[in-house]
Amino acid sequence: MTVALDKDRLVDAMKTQAAIGGTDDGGLHRLALSDADGAARDWFVEQLRKLDLTVRIDEFGNIFGRRPGTDPDAPPVLVGSHLDSQPNGGIYDGQLGVVAGLELLRTLDDEGIETGHPIEIVNWTNEEGSRFQPGLQGSGVWSGEFDLQTEYDRTDRDGVRLLDELERIGYRGDTPAEPTEEYEAYFELHIEQGPYLEQSGNDVGVVTGVVGLSWGEVTFTGEANHAGSTPMHLRYDAGVPAAELLVQIRRLPGRIGERTVGTVGSVDVEPDSINIIPETATVTWDVRDPSDDVVDRAVDRLSAEAEAAAGREGVDYEIEEAARTGSAEFDEDCVETVQRVADEFGYESMRLLSGGNHDASHVNEVCDSAMVFAVSEGGKSHTPEEFTSWGDCYKAANTVANATLATAIDDEESTNSRRRIAADE
Amino acid sequence: MTVALDKDRLVDAMKTQAAIGGTDDGGLHRLALSDADGAARDWFVEQLRKLDLTVRIDEFGNIFGRRPGTDPDAPPVLVGSHLDSQPNGGIYDGQLGVVAGLELLRTLDDEGIETGHPIEIVNWTNEEGSRFQPGLQGSGVWSGEFDLQTEYDRTDRDGVRLLDELERIGYRGDTPAEPTEEYEAYFELHIEQGPYLEQSGNDVGVVTGVVGLSWGEVTFTGEANHAGSTPMHLRYDAGVPAAELLVQIRRLPGRIGERTVGTVGSVDVEPDSINIIPETATVTWDVRDPSDDVVDRAVDRLSAEAEAAAGREGVDYEIEEAARTGSAEFDEDCVETVQRVADEFGYESMRLLSGGNHDASHVNEVCDSAMVFAVSEGGKSHTPEEFTSWGDCYKAANTVANATLATAIDDEESTNSRRRIAADE
Repeated sequence: MTVALDKDRLVDAMKTQAAIGGTDDGGLHRLALSDADGAARDWFVEQLRKLDLTVRIDEFGNIFGRRPGTDPDAPPVLVGSHLDSQPNGGIYDGQLGVVAGLELLRTLDDEGIETGHPIEIVNWTNEEGSRFQPGLQGSGVWSGEFDLQTEYDRTDRDGVRLLDELERIGYRGDTPAEPTEEYEAYFELHIEQGPYLEQSGNDVGVVTGVVGLSWGEVTFTGEANHAGSTPMHLRYDAGVPAAELLVQIRRLPGRIGERTVGTVGSVDVEPDSINIIPETATVTWDVRDPSDDVVDRAVDRLSAEAEAAAGREGVDYEIEEAARTGSAEFDEDCVETVQRVADEFGYESMRLLSGGNHDASHVNEVCDSAMVFAVSEGGKSHTPEEFTSWGDCYKAANTVANATLATAIDDEESTNSRRRIAADE
Repeated sequence: MTVALDKDRLVDAMKTQAAIGGTDDGGLHRLALSDADGAARDWFVEQLRKLDLTVRIDEFGNIFGRRPGTDPDAPPVLVGSHLDSQPNGGIYDGQLGVVAGLELLRTLDDEGIETGHPIEIVNWTNEEGSRFQPGLQGSGVWSGEFDLQTEYDRTDRDGVRLLDELERIGYRGDTPAEPTEEYEAYFELHIEQGPYLEQSGNDVGVVTGVVGLSWGEVTFTGEANHAGSTPMHLRYDAGVPAAELLVQIRRLPGRIGERTVGTVGSVDVEPDSINIIPETATVTWDVRDPSDDVVDRAVDRLSAEAEAAAGREGVDYEIEEAARTGSAEFDEDCVETVQRVADEFGYESMRLLSGGNHDASHVNEVCDSAMVFAVSEGGKSHTPEEFTSWGDCYKAANTVANATLATAIDDEESTNSRRRIAADE
């Protein structure tokens, strides 16, 4: 059984939510727990209540809306994504996944379809990690990967504490931020944020997993001195090894793996004055690869480059890995369900790994998960130029909605039940 | 005729003024036209009034104190430096030159010495250029190199206008910011801010000129994109050519001139997020050489490097030179006077060029000038670690004081008068 979502209503919902925190250039500026995020959440909760769903807000602000199933023992199927955005980001990143889930629930209501399993829609708190680090925070706390109190105490650049902002916008809920019951599966639609679907001419992506990732930073410490009167051979310029490391991180993937990527997104130099030799220089790294071994090797290589560059300039350095996420492999049954649905609708699809990290990486630790990717034109994301045509939005939404429905309607024994029986044997 | 300054009084005056805006770590934080700068100026003016000098504050806040000469036609001899500091700078940069001039005037009073020429002590407004750019501002306006109104309208990082701050601290004076009469000569004592005097074991530096300088910045513009899902070959990462240019500027002096220096003091990357490929990256440059031709070639070379680096990454770039100062050659007679005085006191000295720019570069356009350098231990400056022993302060102060005195007391026809006669011939 499949349902066809209402494309006009999907587009209307996208436009409505895109206006909350929308920017003049067609982008979206809706940082986690800002007033705009609060307004987007209010709109979302209002839609859930209109559908008579049971709304649950947990103590970390994750919002759930449950549509009951007919089988009292069947664990719920979860579908959703996130409503927060990057600073001056695009309108598709996150929001499309939430709106697609909402449109599924509206369609089921319209058509009077009942499912064996309950269906829960979810909006995860602070996926982006722009205002408060780290990202994937709501799903991280919920899945038990992150500690609740530690994440409450995170502060933004102005020193504002996350918990205070959560209370201010009225989204510190009262249910535990953890899975209080078993879940059947989780499906998430997200824009690809990369060029592979467009370049290969596909309609939707069947995501089989998420690449492994390492984040960190290196700080070099030399000596601040006058740019005019300090001879070159008596300098200890922290900026130089930082720049050399940046260039090496750009070149690293070409030496280490076909799918490896390496990025320096942030550079900070102090005292940051045109005529003073930098005393400290910090560069961040972001390296990813489908293989965790390759990520290990990349970190080893960039550590060696940092040491060599510091040695050449005669400066000290400190290196610290700030985050490490192992690659995630999604459940083959869930992936197959997505694939089958895409095939049934006649959508051209390809299997691919996600280069970006998503809430599904965390949720995959709790229950079987899979993702659907929508085409990102030009691969652009985290910018107002981010674009997915309404047609491509609709195809991906139909795919995630029907994968969710197919899993929820399933009247066979659930995957998890089967697994439990197998474990008992 | 020579006078010996009072070392204890010189040290006391240094300590008194170092306490105005002094930091806990022994440094000085006295940004131009801040409250602390106002307090340092108040102290300075109070000392001038105690000596019954004629105090004059010009419309750009430069403070002059005149001690009359016996010859009504003799043009004044100017001596001084600046009282403003870098952010968290040292206590010797600038202040030592002002205090040395003050101690000369006190000593002349004590000993009842009269000079043919008047002696004027000066404190120039905003030498450092840290809060308001450009630096050397007061002497630049006074010498006619800078336009008064343009400099009035400069704003600091908070958007505060220079003129408003000048009025707020009560130092917008009423005399024109220009030489309203002829000047015989200008002498300035400054710390070296470089290592040559200490390394060669000399007591004082006889400065023969100032190197030429170019300041500017290059901004590369690529495409912001997701660090995880954008393949390496589809990136236009603005950070990479910026880093490559930085490294090339570090290496440039080794290819272009023995005395050339090249520095990137400031780096800015946007959007400055760990998982976003930089869209823009800006690096500043500071290149200096005793030869203006070499500075020209250095700017040509770094322009070519910027173009090549941008081309390799496929990004755009803009390059802009923000300031250019030709090298200055001080008057041979003034330099000789400094040399003779140093020799008379038995101070070990060496002739050298200043790698840093000083108010004397501007004043040299108005009248014959020369400088004295005091030892900078470790060559450090613009940091609380800046250090000159009281003994070295005293030697340099004695040298600049007696060079000023020798020129002011001179009862022969003045240098300028001789030059005028020569020009008439």
